[in-house]
Amino acid sequence: MRISEVVLTPIAFPDPPLLNSAGVHQPWALRTIVELRCGDGLTGIGETYGDAPHLRLLETAAPHLVGLDPFDTNGLLSRVRQALGVVDVPDRHGLTGGSSPQKTVLRVFSPFEVACLDLQGKLIGRPVVDLLGGKVRDEVAFSAYLFYKWAKHPADGSPDEYGEALDPPGIVAQARHLVDRYGFRSIKLKGGVFPPHEEVEAIRALRAEFPGLPLRLDPNAAWSVPTSLEIAEQTAGLLEYLEDPTPGIDGMAQVAREAPMPLATNMCVVSPDDLAPGFAAGCVGVVLADHHYWGGLRRSAELAAICRTWGVGVSMHSNSHLGISLAAMTHLGGALPELTYAADTHTPWQYGVDVLTEPLSIVDGTVRVPGKPGLGVDLDPDALARLHENYLRCGITERDDTSYMRTFDPTYERRRPRW
Amino acid sequence: MRISEVVLTPIAFPDPPLLNSAGVHQPWALRTIVELRCGDGLTGIGETYGDAPHLRLLETAAPHLVGLDPFDTNGLLSRVRQALGVVDVPDRHGLTGGSSPQKTVLRVFSPFEVACLDLQGKLIGRPVVDLLGGKVRDEVAFSAYLFYKWAKHPADGSPDEYGEALDPPGIVAQARHLVDRYGFRSIKLKGGVFPPHEEVEAIRALRAEFPGLPLRLDPNAAWSVPTSLEIAEQTAGLLEYLEDPTPGIDGMAQVAREAPMPLATNMCVVSPDDLAPGFAAGCVGVVLADHHYWGGLRRSAELAAICRTWGVGVSMHSNSHLGISLAAMTHLGGALPELTYAADTHTPWQYGVDVLTEPLSIVDGTVRVPGKPGLGVDLDPDALARLHENYLRCGITERDDTSYMRTFDPTYERRRPRW
Ligand SMILES: [Mg+2]
Ligand SMILES: [Mg+2]
Repeated sequence: MRISEVVLTPIAFPDPPLLNSAGVHQPWALRTIVELRCGDGLTGIGETYGDAPHLRLLETAAPHLVGLDPFDTNGLLSRVRQALGVVDVPDRHGLTGGSSPQKTVLRVFSPFEVACLDLQGKLIGRPVVDLLGGKVRDEVAFSAYLFYKWAKHPADGSPDEYGEALDPPGIVAQARHLVDRYGFRSIKLKGGVFPPHEEVEAIRALRAEFPGLPLRLDPNAAWSVPTSLEIAEQTAGLLEYLEDPTPGIDGMAQVAREAPMPLATNMCVVSPDDLAPGFAAGCVGVVLADHHYWGGLRRSAELAAICRTWGVGVSMHSNSHLGISLAAMTHLGGALPELTYAADTHTPWQYGVDVLTEPLSIVDGTVRVPGKPGLGVDLDPDALARLHENYLRCGITERDDTSYMRTFDPTYERRRPRW
Repeated sequence: MRISEVVLTPIAFPDPPLLNSAGVHQPWALRTIVELRCGDGLTGIGETYGDAPHLRLLETAAPHLVGLDPFDTNGLLSRVRQALGVVDVPDRHGLTGGSSPQKTVLRVFSPFEVACLDLQGKLIGRPVVDLLGGKVRDEVAFSAYLFYKWAKHPADGSPDEYGEALDPPGIVAQARHLVDRYGFRSIKLKGGVFPPHEEVEAIRALRAEFPGLPLRLDPNAAWSVPTSLEIAEQTAGLLEYLEDPTPGIDGMAQVAREAPMPLATNMCVVSPDDLAPGFAAGCVGVVLADHHYWGGLRRSAELAAICRTWGVGVSMHSNSHLGISLAAMTHLGGALPELTYAADTHTPWQYGVDVLTEPLSIVDGTVRVPGKPGLGVDLDPDALARLHENYLRCGITERDDTSYMRTFDPTYERRRPRW
């Protein structure tokens, strides 16, 4: 059983005007759907970023995978590495931290590795979680992911279902909507949008409204070290973790030494090269594993093992994604004893749009680990074709929250730290 | 498919009088053979230590494994952990470093994990190496493992096939015998037996006789820090690594700072808890992974990933073992890109005795990674019964090189450091 064909389909799906420290989400979010076909109708699927520079790297790697045994993920990695050579392709938005040739290779490798695990599972009649050591929990918890947002994209006719959220009452209303609908049992607020004291007010309002739920705040490195320390003090006892208050390992380490809560990151420890210096500096108490750039599910499990060994907690990061990624995260989360925090997901923001026949659903704030072979989800070819049409028509080929924001506010600049 | 029966068979096989810093090998070496039976004649096998305290822990864990899915190695670990509770059972000989409840659990878990991977492979028709990410090499290199030794056990009638080796010419003759017979392309000398300058003479004699082969010296922590530094200087350019010259992370770190070659260890970084302090201290350049106490093959692969991430090399350690362990080491070595040194093995010292129908063989210093499902080796029930008879008759229930040495030299004491 060998891979006979690699199909890459860039897609676009509607995305709300969510605000962050880099600007505002564009009307369309991009992904690439990966299919590894093996003949006999057997196909493994994966999902990754859809930005043009990344897509070009996927296209560079793809022909080199033909003939590969889907169990040979070591061979997959070396083929990807050879195909790419030494290239460093950063995200333009910079929301997943620094970039390096190593991170670039692992990011390109990731959806192929997930698709190989899907294939392996289908070949042997086992869910992917069994290929990761077996299920340690039946359901994986996700958190309500709150965003400051506009009521609608300025060019749109009417507000989306979530409406505006630009102040504490708006954020609390959004949280109520998400918690009532999905049963989330922890809450994350994407900050870095308004002056920090306003975001602290939102956290206080959330604490008042949801006294029992753990809260997190993630300003995406929008704050200086002194500001971070001030806000950390103000939010003592309010946050289960404070995520990336300030840029860089050194800055985070300075904050971590005095902050009363653990710091979490998906911006300063984002690839294997960051682990030794980051842990030596004591810059974080929680790493947000994201299989999309840590190199797939097995490498993310390795990351979790490293965190366990160094006494660092594990949570999960998300960018806008669809159901293949949700399934992959759920299998990974199902197999990791180290995952002691609810994972992030953008799923509620995608309005139910997906490429799957039956997307997994979030119930009581959790996703049940599928028991079917492989990832346990199936591509819907019609939906895939429709979302590919979106991609061809939408005019966006690379995520750029900052430029989109500047179309409305030409004075807007991305600055880290901003406060 | 569930585990229906766990069979533990302690065995004994003849062992030559090999000298080390703890004394001399007894006439019989002990192991325990683990069988996990699943019904339908399907059985997974593993091999571990045979010492009575360890055997008692295996027996404590065994009944808790019935009903387990062999893919659920996460569940296996938690069942073993629950069955044992918090116990700390050190090796009496102390040749694998310190002990802890964590290391004890991982040591008991290991043969069951290997047997589960053997079962998984047999169930899906794949070699174990495929369950570890796929083969990165067709053959795994092993090193010639030289020992100072007596011609025979004092109670025996005639010398064994290797004869005496108590000085440089004896060591060179032993190396010649092993290299000619097995094609080894690297050489390790077990030291810590004679005053260090005599062992350096043996290394010099080996270098003269085998100019192209990498050499290693392992005194098992028999030297003080000043002695280690002196010997490291004297062997500059002669050794690919110096293994455990002195006890403990601090001592090793002092030596590592000035030694001209990397230090390797299977004595000071021997369990997950040692990694963060050991790497922070910079005590070693090479970790000798040994799946028997690092918690099986997947945990050993995790260890290799950690070493890769921290820029530390990986080699493999061995104690006296038979063919199941050799097969497990070969699958692991076949899947680890990080394994850049030839692994240790005691195989040549076991006179061809084994529990397998067809043991793997060492050719050109390497063992070919088996392609058959599972570990690719089969138990020979008659051989197993014979070796179990040995166990029942030999009168040894726990390895104790020091006490055995004291029967010949009542003044002998184990001291670390000795010089
Ligand atoms: Mg973040
Ligand atoms: Mg050693």
